[in-house]
Amino acid sequence: MTIERLMISLRGIVGADGIVVDDAEMQPYLVSWRDNWRGKSPAVVRPRSTAEVSEVVRACGKFGMKIVPQGGRTGVTGASQPHDDSSEIVLSLERMNKVRSVDVDNDTMTVEAGCVLQTIRARAAEADRIFPLLLGAVGSCMIGGNISTNAGGVNVIRYGSTRSLVAGLEVVLADGRVWDGLRGLRKDNAGYDLKHLFIGAEGTLGIITAAVVRLFPKPRSEITAFLATSSPRDALRLLVRAKEAFAEQLTAFELIQRLCIDVTCKRIPGVSNPVAGPSPWYVLMEVSGQSSDEITRGLVEEALQAAIDAGEIVDATIASSMQQSQMLWKMRESIAEAHKHEGTSFKHDISVPTSRVPDFLDQIEPKLVALIPGIRMFTFGHLGDGNLHFNPLIAEGATARPNDLQAVNTLVHDLVAAFGGSISAEHGIGLLRRDELVRYKSDVELQMMAGLKLLFDPQNILNPGKVIAPELLAREAAVITRSRAEGN
Amino acid sequence: MTIERLMISLRGIVGADGIVVDDAEMQPYLVSWRDNWRGKSPAVVRPRSTAEVSEVVRACGKFGMKIVPQGGRTGVTGASQPHDDSSEIVLSLERMNKVRSVDVDNDTMTVEAGCVLQTIRARAAEADRIFPLLLGAVGSCMIGGNISTNAGGVNVIRYGSTRSLVAGLEVVLADGRVWDGLRGLRKDNAGYDLKHLFIGAEGTLGIITAAVVRLFPKPRSEITAFLATSSPRDALRLLVRAKEAFAEQLTAFELIQRLCIDVTCKRIPGVSNPVAGPSPWYVLMEVSGQSSDEITRGLVEEALQAAIDAGEIVDATIASSMQQSQMLWKMRESIAEAHKHEGTSFKHDISVPTSRVPDFLDQIEPKLVALIPGIRMFTFGHLGDGNLHFNPLIAEGATARPNDLQAVNTLVHDLVAAFGGSISAEHGIGLLRRDELVRYKSDVELQMMAGLKLLFDPQNILNPGKVIAPELLAREAAVITRSRAEGN
Repeated sequence: MTIERLMISLRGIVGADGIVVDDAEMQPYLVSWRDNWRGKSPAVVRPRSTAEVSEVVRACGKFGMKIVPQGGRTGVTGASQPHDDSSEIVLSLERMNKVRSVDVDNDTMTVEAGCVLQTIRARAAEADRIFPLLLGAVGSCMIGGNISTNAGGVNVIRYGSTRSLVAGLEVVLADGRVWDGLRGLRKDNAGYDLKHLFIGAEGTLGIITAAVVRLFPKPRSEITAFLATSSPRDALRLLVRAKEAFAEQLTAFELIQRLCIDVTCKRIPGVSNPVAGPSPWYVLMEVSGQSSDEITRGLVEEALQAAIDAGEIVDATIASSMQQSQMLWKMRESIAEAHKHEGTSFKHDISVPTSRVPDFLDQIEPKLVALIPGIRMFTFGHLGDGNLHFNPLIAEGATARPNDLQAVNTLVHDLVAAFGGSISAEHGIGLLRRDELVRYKSDVELQMMAGLKLLFDPQNILNPGKVIAPELLAREAAVITRSRAEGN
Repeated sequence: MTIERLMISLRGIVGADGIVVDDAEMQPYLVSWRDNWRGKSPAVVRPRSTAEVSEVVRACGKFGMKIVPQGGRTGVTGASQPHDDSSEIVLSLERMNKVRSVDVDNDTMTVEAGCVLQTIRARAAEADRIFPLLLGAVGSCMIGGNISTNAGGVNVIRYGSTRSLVAGLEVVLADGRVWDGLRGLRKDNAGYDLKHLFIGAEGTLGIITAAVVRLFPKPRSEITAFLATSSPRDALRLLVRAKEAFAEQLTAFELIQRLCIDVTCKRIPGVSNPVAGPSPWYVLMEVSGQSSDEITRGLVEEALQAAIDAGEIVDATIASSMQQSQMLWKMRESIAEAHKHEGTSFKHDISVPTSRVPDFLDQIEPKLVALIPGIRMFTFGHLGDGNLHFNPLIAEGATARPNDLQAVNTLVHDLVAAFGGSISAEHGIGLLRRDELVRYKSDVELQMMAGLKLLFDPQNILNPGKVIAPELLAREAAVITRSRAEGN
């Protein structure tokens, strides 16, 4: 089969309006949101149904064409961009954007992979429920991508990562077969739980085409507070207090270093620091519950007074209106945008046990300063989850040396590993962390991963080269072949 | 290697006190709690450490000896008993019973597989936390078994199944290698999430030797209510109301048919029905929160008044003391024990979408009555999870016909399947449901399961014949061999 025949075949499956081959029209599909990943592809294929996805995968399989599944392209690891050798078609799920059904009394909704997160949240609200996944890209990210990267966001402390929000999946496998696992059950111990394999696998084990997602009661009150604290250690003591006081009603607990606030207030119109005096660290906390605003606010005030008495915080502002609360969240959500304009930085999406965050921050700073004099710490993130966006900036006006990025990554990730942490807390691996992963995972774990990839995608046609390094895959394939030849 | 040499080798690994070969001493290890599963084994091996488990697995691998991993033997599906052909050693984790560490500020605890659930709960309480898993067998079940069966229990509506309570695992693989996945992280997207493969796999993919489990804030108030309702449909309306009113603070929501209460009050000393008038159905509800008992009770009273006004319940008792609350829970937990004395029954552990429970119950009863005249419905379970223990009893004084069990199972499970439900909500598959599973799973799903088993345990030495039917495994092995021979 020639590539022309494959294209004819694909056009036959998805229709003329379902395939893009023009270079200019393809551009948006080949570039990531942050423009840090770009690739090339012979075609962007946009099926409208699971059956079409299945047929596309079968056609590609016959031709030996590889496939990059793609959603809203808001990922930051290059997982949804093709490589630059035109060896893969882009399979965009954007036209599979239907909410198939809502089961209010079961607190579930069945959605197609191309549904924009915002749409799902809006449909949940119509049913007087919430779908709690919330992240900066809410207006453009798609649920298939959220699930494939096990997206995190600001409300994980209460509701868990995307994994916790998925009851069932529909997946097209590498050979084109469809697995219908669209179950809306809270409990199902009938056999291995296969959905967890595909969640967070970044499209390397199968293509998620639809999901049953879980809905939650809408909170009746939300109290947002912005707190000044002297150190991450004090912030941790406050977190422990807040969890004891509010349990699951603690909906967000974000730690933010002062430089992040200063830069954001400088760069982003309409954002200002509501706490009067300067403070080295801040906490943005949200408590939400089913009681009235007055009751919830009373409980928050009580806890914060105790925290002030205990010296955990030095100043506190409780948002007095929805508008003020939104401003605080805009400040938080704009940090990444503001950060872009501050020069060269080294980004990390790391997690360590929550209890170890203060020690980690104490130890990493002198190491980095010794490596790159003048480097400025720029740390914010989800302290409640032990997850930091640890993005130090080089000194103002300075230029990074060629090896700085790699040296910083190694320093940061080695210390993360020493603390039993993760080099990717919520962003995934993609291409960005693929080769580093080999340094931080045991051989046993890497071999299990490679074995799964070989089992589910023996021809390596689904998002090849992402997550698992090709050499690792080749080595494991050889081991399995040898072991089978020996009759084991 | 002869079996004698294997025994010498095993004795060398675990010590003389670590191996049991005497028939009488082995008996307890060969029988399930309910005495519905019995097997035979050449030896019970009781390692004290992960290293010993690894060596035992390697020694068995060399000999071709198969292994049944075993915890507290409280399962009901035969998953932890050997077959009756003495082809497997029993590998008991009971001597691996240490709490390795508690990280209070991280809300995690690292425990060995042989820790009794009650011990873990007690250690959590010492740290002013809870480990929320709670089921009837709390005093004897072990966490390794809880994790391997993804145990449910009465608090799943709030905290999720065991799967949700596990942050990390240590697993000995079929070739004896140890996977150290003991991470205490709330977020980790660095590669495939392997722990979910082993959770709920019933020891067929690896032997869980330790886990990092999650702790939660201790609720400061708990309100237990026992409610009389006219129908499952009204109970569902109450459930929806309670979720909206309490969100995660709704900690239990158990639906109980009147016959269950009557039988339990008759059979179990010290248990009585606190609701005056007779009612066809009851709900046992618990709400717990971080506020005072008075505040929580006020909220419960308000919601229950509204439920009475709306006709969802006809009578309500709120426990006025810890003692009264414990009596209500004793009544609930004693239903299974009382049920045993009522003659032949047909047990099912099923789930359907919560919204469909009333329809399911409406439709199943006439079908069963037509099949077995006089059959008495005996239904209780976790309505909040859509999970029913659906255990109808034959008529008093009647005897079951030889084919009744199979006919009832098929009728019940076929309807469960038609409702998109599961034939095992929380008990697992083991031997009990292994052959039925083939009827209710798609070929695609069964083949994925068999593929995983072949990948992780190519010699089929870990808990062989459980979960996956041998014919299915053989068929899939042939498919993979053929596909490899063809160079795919």
